[in-house]
Amino acid sequence: MKRIVLKFGGTSVGTVENIQKVANIIKKRHKEDKEIIVIVSAMSGVTNELKKKSELISKNFDSKELDTLLASGEQASSSLLSGALIDLGIKARSWLGWQIPIVTDNNHTSSKIIKIKTQGILKFISEGGVAVVAGFQGITTDDRVSTLGRGGSDLSAVTVAKFFQTDLCEIYTDVEGVLTTDPFINKKAKKIDKISYEEMLEMAALGAKVMQPTSVQAAMIDNIIVHVRSVFSEKSGTKIVSESGIDYKKVVTGIAYSKNDAKVTLVGAEDKPGVAADIFEPLGNSNINVDMVIQNISSDGKKTDVTFTIKREDLRKTLSLIEKNNKNLNYQKIIHDDKVSKVSIIGAGMIVNPGVTHKMFRSLANERINILAISTSEIKISVLVQEDSTQKAVKALHKAFELD
Amino acid sequence: MKRIVLKFGGTSVGTVENIQKVANIIKKRHKEDKEIIVIVSAMSGVTNELKKKSELISKNFDSKELDTLLASGEQASSSLLSGALIDLGIKARSWLGWQIPIVTDNNHTSSKIIKIKTQGILKFISEGGVAVVAGFQGITTDDRVSTLGRGGSDLSAVTVAKFFQTDLCEIYTDVEGVLTTDPFINKKAKKIDKISYEEMLEMAALGAKVMQPTSVQAAMIDNIIVHVRSVFSEKSGTKIVSESGIDYKKVVTGIAYSKNDAKVTLVGAEDKPGVAADIFEPLGNSNINVDMVIQNISSDGKKTDVTFTIKREDLRKTLSLIEKNNKNLNYQKIIHDDKVSKVSIIGAGMIVNPGVTHKMFRSLANERINILAISTSEIKISVLVQEDSTQKAVKALHKAFELD
Repeated sequence: MKRIVLKFGGTSVGTVENIQKVANIIKKRHKEDKEIIVIVSAMSGVTNELKKKSELISKNFDSKELDTLLASGEQASSSLLSGALIDLGIKARSWLGWQIPIVTDNNHTSSKIIKIKTQGILKFISEGGVAVVAGFQGITTDDRVSTLGRGGSDLSAVTVAKFFQTDLCEIYTDVEGVLTTDPFINKKAKKIDKISYEEMLEMAALGAKVMQPTSVQAAMIDNIIVHVRSVFSEKSGTKIVSESGIDYKKVVTGIAYSKNDAKVTLVGAEDKPGVAADIFEPLGNSNINVDMVIQNISSDGKKTDVTFTIKREDLRKTLSLIEKNNKNLNYQKIIHDDKVSKVSIIGAGMIVNPGVTHKMFRSLANERINILAISTSEIKISVLVQEDSTQKAVKALHKAFELD
Repeated sequence: MKRIVLKFGGTSVGTVENIQKVANIIKKRHKEDKEIIVIVSAMSGVTNELKKKSELISKNFDSKELDTLLASGEQASSSLLSGALIDLGIKARSWLGWQIPIVTDNNHTSSKIIKIKTQGILKFISEGGVAVVAGFQGITTDDRVSTLGRGGSDLSAVTVAKFFQTDLCEIYTDVEGVLTTDPFINKKAKKIDKISYEEMLEMAALGAKVMQPTSVQAAMIDNIIVHVRSVFSEKSGTKIVSESGIDYKKVVTGIAYSKNDAKVTLVGAEDKPGVAADIFEPLGNSNINVDMVIQNISSDGKKTDVTFTIKREDLRKTLSLIEKNNKNLNYQKIIHDDKVSKVSIIGAGMIVNPGVTHKMFRSLANERINILAISTSEIKISVLVQEDSTQKAVKALHKAFELD
């Protein structure tokens, strides 16, 4: 008999009606004669509401108590869903973190799962029961409630799939899967049938909307096949698998872009060992996330230009940190531009297909889009462009790489 | 060092501001160098909201899942209060039912506490920590979440007081204590300083507003001194103690009344053994609660009149059941009155004070209030009067027994 994990997010169980709808989906899957472990998030809005209360009480609310507080959300949703299943005549019960138990480390609010005891649930599902596991939560070795951090229920699902050696981990959500690009800026965006873990991670925001990167990474490490699909449709969604499981007919899998970027160039910085470290160390210390970094070989071996991108909201702070540091860096001037965005093509297929870079640059040139900077990895090529040409760039690349 | 239990109800922790206020009360008590165990209810409204969701999902929602669902409310409030205490610099932590554990029987939704393991909390409070126990909840021997039913947090408080052998159990609420009568119908109502468990139980609704009867009974059985007091005032409230702990200067402790009663009289019923059983058995089977019952000795030994009171909402059903049963009862006619109420004087002091009954009847007669029926117990005398004279009766008795 097949054993599967079905995970339902906060929107899927956001109302009583949705909970009943989810119960009916589970009932249908249960009839397929499968052993079913369900993972459920808190009803949408509940976690934020509880979080807000804690913040009103203290700006520095105790992390152990915060975990106990937040875990109550999944306790409620798992029992409501179990009750709905029982009402449909299905044997079901809720399993809280401590009842299984799901044991985590003591790193409250972003704990890592150490182990999951499978005995109780295995017995229950072997007797035809549907186990409804409260997502996001576990307990530490000293019996305190812990939580797994952002997107924790996805992580619960992947880790449960691992420990229970299930055949599949299905993430039910409110979208039909991972799309080739953002449908808001390109109506021709299409659902991707299969995507590799690495591609999914490189898809950044586009992928993260569907599944948190930490959970994708966890699935990658243990080679768990994840199927992201919609609660509103019976159609198959996107399967996240290892690269070897994909037959790459297309070179590029998806087109991603980032908004709200800013570009900073240090013109004529001293070209000496350690200059890059000197530039970025103070930024790192101030929690400023540097994305692309481009440094050209200097023509005279004495001066070089260093360009990097950051989030737009960090621009002011970045400039002030750089200026403070000028004695060290000894640059001639700073140029900055807060109206840029990054457009990327992602595809594991490009590793074995030469000419992708050229094709990308050509199609942007055809649209008269100026490339401000370039950075590449094994399965991703990113270019920095003026923000107002983002949409044009995405559309051109989507078409050029036959994703339309 | 003194060890005390402090219990805070739903209204007391109903908002973030109230939780902070409660934290400050606890801080003050903690400075008195006491070992403190706090019991906390769910934030007001939370339990009803969760209950409503379960009812929308199923009219017959599974009781085990309902307990898991409802217990999440006290999980949230106990962690919020603990966080507020920690924010005030006090060592504190939440203790959920399973973490202690508080072990109950399997009678979900109205479980009884079997035992409480004291080890963990004793260590914690002996090291100066404030233990914040989630009220209302426990776990069964097979590790499912259970709840104690209506007013369950009061019961948690009394039972924790018992198992931890505390010197006192303080129930903080939103009223200043138990009053001599309902202040809405008699402004001269005064706080009672000390009341016996038995009197408290006889005060019915008047007492129940302050503390659930089951919890009063539990306190009585183990002789736990309960102090009911207001979160809004530092004044002492009402102490509920055993009769031996009270110096009865006043014969009567309080005046209670019930609303929405109805009276039924079977005129000329056959006076044979078992007639009372014949009348009330069908009512009991239909869950109709009969309150006062009056049967006079018949003058001729053949026919008798039986009068009883029920809740007004049950009148129609009661009449129909009695009429169906006429063959058996063989009465001449039924008289009913749905505009009556019961007024009672309660006081353990009346046991040793003759003349109370006479004084009660005289003061009602002086107000020209007609007594429709009478029933008495050791510490309570109740009379049935026309509903529109309830207030006049309460005021007259409150004055007559020197409670003004």
